[in-house]
Amino acid sequence: MNLENVPEEESLDPADWQLMRSLGHRMIDDIMTYLETVRTRPVWQPIPEKIKAYFKQPLPVEPQGTEQAYQDFLEYVLPHPMGNIHPRFWGWVIGTGTPLGMLAEMLAAGMNPNVGGADHVANYVEAQVLDWCKEMLGYPAEASGLLVSGGSMANLVGLTVARNSKAEFDLRTHGVHAAPRKMTLYGSQETHSSVQKAIELLGLGSNAFRQIPVNSDFKIDISGLETAILEDRQEGYQPICIIGNAGTVNTGAIDDLDRLADICQREGLWFHVDGAFGALAVLSSELRPLLVGMERADSLAFDLHKWMYMPYEVGCALVRQEDDHRSTFSLTPDYLTHSDRGLAGGSIWFSDYGIQLSRGFRALKVWMSMKEHGAQKYGRLIQQNIDQARYLASQVEDMSELQLLAPVPLNIVCFRFVADDLDDESLNDLNKELLIALQESGVAAPSYTVIDGKYALRVAITNHRSKREDFEILVREVIRLGKKMMHSGQP
Amino acid sequence: MNLENVPEEESLDPADWQLMRSLGHRMIDDIMTYLETVRTRPVWQPIPEKIKAYFKQPLPVEPQGTEQAYQDFLEYVLPHPMGNIHPRFWGWVIGTGTPLGMLAEMLAAGMNPNVGGADHVANYVEAQVLDWCKEMLGYPAEASGLLVSGGSMANLVGLTVARNSKAEFDLRTHGVHAAPRKMTLYGSQETHSSVQKAIELLGLGSNAFRQIPVNSDFKIDISGLETAILEDRQEGYQPICIIGNAGTVNTGAIDDLDRLADICQREGLWFHVDGAFGALAVLSSELRPLLVGMERADSLAFDLHKWMYMPYEVGCALVRQEDDHRSTFSLTPDYLTHSDRGLAGGSIWFSDYGIQLSRGFRALKVWMSMKEHGAQKYGRLIQQNIDQARYLASQVEDMSELQLLAPVPLNIVCFRFVADDLDDESLNDLNKELLIALQESGVAAPSYTVIDGKYALRVAITNHRSKREDFEILVREVIRLGKKMMHSGQP
Repeated sequence: MNLENVPEEESLDPADWQLMRSLGHRMIDDIMTYLETVRTRPVWQPIPEKIKAYFKQPLPVEPQGTEQAYQDFLEYVLPHPMGNIHPRFWGWVIGTGTPLGMLAEMLAAGMNPNVGGADHVANYVEAQVLDWCKEMLGYPAEASGLLVSGGSMANLVGLTVARNSKAEFDLRTHGVHAAPRKMTLYGSQETHSSVQKAIELLGLGSNAFRQIPVNSDFKIDISGLETAILEDRQEGYQPICIIGNAGTVNTGAIDDLDRLADICQREGLWFHVDGAFGALAVLSSELRPLLVGMERADSLAFDLHKWMYMPYEVGCALVRQEDDHRSTFSLTPDYLTHSDRGLAGGSIWFSDYGIQLSRGFRALKVWMSMKEHGAQKYGRLIQQNIDQARYLASQVEDMSELQLLAPVPLNIVCFRFVADDLDDESLNDLNKELLIALQESGVAAPSYTVIDGKYALRVAITNHRSKREDFEILVREVIRLGKKMMHSGQP
Repeated sequence: MNLENVPEEESLDPADWQLMRSLGHRMIDDIMTYLETVRTRPVWQPIPEKIKAYFKQPLPVEPQGTEQAYQDFLEYVLPHPMGNIHPRFWGWVIGTGTPLGMLAEMLAAGMNPNVGGADHVANYVEAQVLDWCKEMLGYPAEASGLLVSGGSMANLVGLTVARNSKAEFDLRTHGVHAAPRKMTLYGSQETHSSVQKAIELLGLGSNAFRQIPVNSDFKIDISGLETAILEDRQEGYQPICIIGNAGTVNTGAIDDLDRLADICQREGLWFHVDGAFGALAVLSSELRPLLVGMERADSLAFDLHKWMYMPYEVGCALVRQEDDHRSTFSLTPDYLTHSDRGLAGGSIWFSDYGIQLSRGFRALKVWMSMKEHGAQKYGRLIQQNIDQARYLASQVEDMSELQLLAPVPLNIVCFRFVADDLDDESLNDLNKELLIALQESGVAAPSYTVIDGKYALRVAITNHRSKREDFEILVREVIRLGKKMMHSGQP
């Protein structure tokens, strides 16, 4: 090779590190101010059409430079957030994030390891975070685990292990097609849609998921469950798994997990618990008794970016028997063989425990945040959110213009504006308009659901910035908007 | 509720924002210096046992504070990296990251949106990044897409759509069990293990994956493929999909994608292309002709954290027919219903196109980086890595102590140290020890594979910091270590 003709080599590193450093400092100042002042801004606002149009520009071919890239961020991106870092955001079940969590994401991206395997420190950090999670939730210390993108993936991991472990043949090799009997799974009608999605993905078919009715407090009806299992066995199906809910998405209901564990034990079924946010309620000494039985799960799925307030993405899957976990996912071709020594050494290869082979350093934000605050403080904040939910429920019950639509066992409050002379259909229309008006006002951002045919404003509190006064503002504003709409027909 | 008894509310925000701001500035300085000086440090070093032991400490219950959390990071985490940000890291296929990519991760975690849906700017940023990816790769503009954690997930998304679209019944509802004929998929023996993993996950069974032999340049043998499909049809299977490789993990081989597309068209099969890193070689005008046919794929999987040098995690799945994509993954219960207006408005709900419902703002680092550098520069850097692979291959061929073990069509060089008087078994032992000695020295970090029974040092170059001199250092050090081990029996 003639080196005379080789062009000069370049890299993506800055020509001037001092300028990059200065830009980093500017970003720190800007984003810290953004966080510190979030309460002074609207929760959410619709995005202007001209901003949407901006994002239609074609591929940048020429460099615009670091400075311009940041200017574009400041001008077009930063002013149009989802709003979930705001104290009055309570939509879906969405976490808030923290300043140190944010900084930890930068440090993680600076080190930029692939936490799929090999012998380097990020694996040890993740292993410790998993140990801490087990300790926090009272789950067996010898269980295996994996940090994942969130609850959907954690459910998928747990249910994949369930499927493969309960198959009476080598399902990895032969596939679902080879099952002598169709496998069936059980959970309440209030089970999160990600469970159905996982069952579909696994090739089991959504019709294999028996959605059992709930009782008046939205917990799974145990006798209905037992009947369904019995009937399925009689009809030649193979029941493999019960999914218990620790905090349903609609109302925060917690199934009777201990009884579900008993049934699984008796029937030889896999016990998976979806504790997306509710699992963390064990950190509240008052609520801990409601979660008895969770520690008996064969697999447990939960999020850290919801009720642990970590920045996106981080969820966790725990599996009681490491062998079940590993034998479901481990696959080691020549180019991934582990060594005794060297870079490919180390005993922790997380890619053997899940779907991802390339994995980011999401453990770092959890590790640093848990050191920063300690588990007790997380417990207090979770209790604080529960107390706030009760406070809001009591406010709703005190007001003749409002109606509570479900019990409030945890951190979710479903209610609506009511008026004597309106039927349910009219109330549904009115509350739908009211919610949009409320969101567009920027004052508060609940989401919604439908409970027994009634359109509900749904307030899910996994927000460490919310204060009691924020719920007073919500109540006032909902009543004000409702009355205004009653009079004018318009928000 | 008696407010007298309610404890004072707290949050996870800092009591003193100025201190948090100062810490952020310190972090910027520390991590920028870390990146700027990376070349002066060893690529990788084994982690001391006392550091490993540190990560066994139990759950922090009391707060240690922000400052201490960062001190622990500096002392226990930062000094023990994987090494992939170093100019002489070439293990597996692992990207490098960039300073602006790192800063963008902080900004993303500061805004902290959930990019699963709702009407906020992060969705528009991701949609634009997907448009840019399509434009860059010459893929149809009307295709749908999704940013994912990486290649494994991108392959899983593509193959899930393939399975559901090619089923002659409603597979989401009825499952694989209901298939009248067992479905089969086809790819070369060099296909990445994540494809097998996806097939297992989907319940199709790894025995449904026909691993077709390769020819001498490690491309799929077309006539072997055609025979396999024919035989399967005769035996009552239902062929559904061919997986084409754009850059195999062992040697960087690129299948004849245009012929595979022809076969898929003729046979009515889904054409999935795994272009984890190789797809990006279209940015090199010299290599673009090798990838002809990729644009005909029904689904295309590739990474941006490999050969686009983005920080972890970010990969991409593209699907030619949006309907196929959406109908595979969309599931909308009451609590996720989309609106015309308000926060739950907007036309982009990425959770309808993949497994995750909670999704982080991984698009931002791509968006800012592509503005920073422009597509042309990425093309030059990819070409630079290809030129470096050729340079290393030529150096290997010039040295009697070294042997090239596979052609170098792309950016992967497989070679070994050789000596006349050693047979393959002895050479395998020697090269294995040599690699570990090389890694432990901190001079360079290739990984390894086995090619035709021969243990190979494997150099995969997706590193924007590597220079030609780094490969000269590698060659010198491999020869020095090999000779030393020949004489002493020890590295």
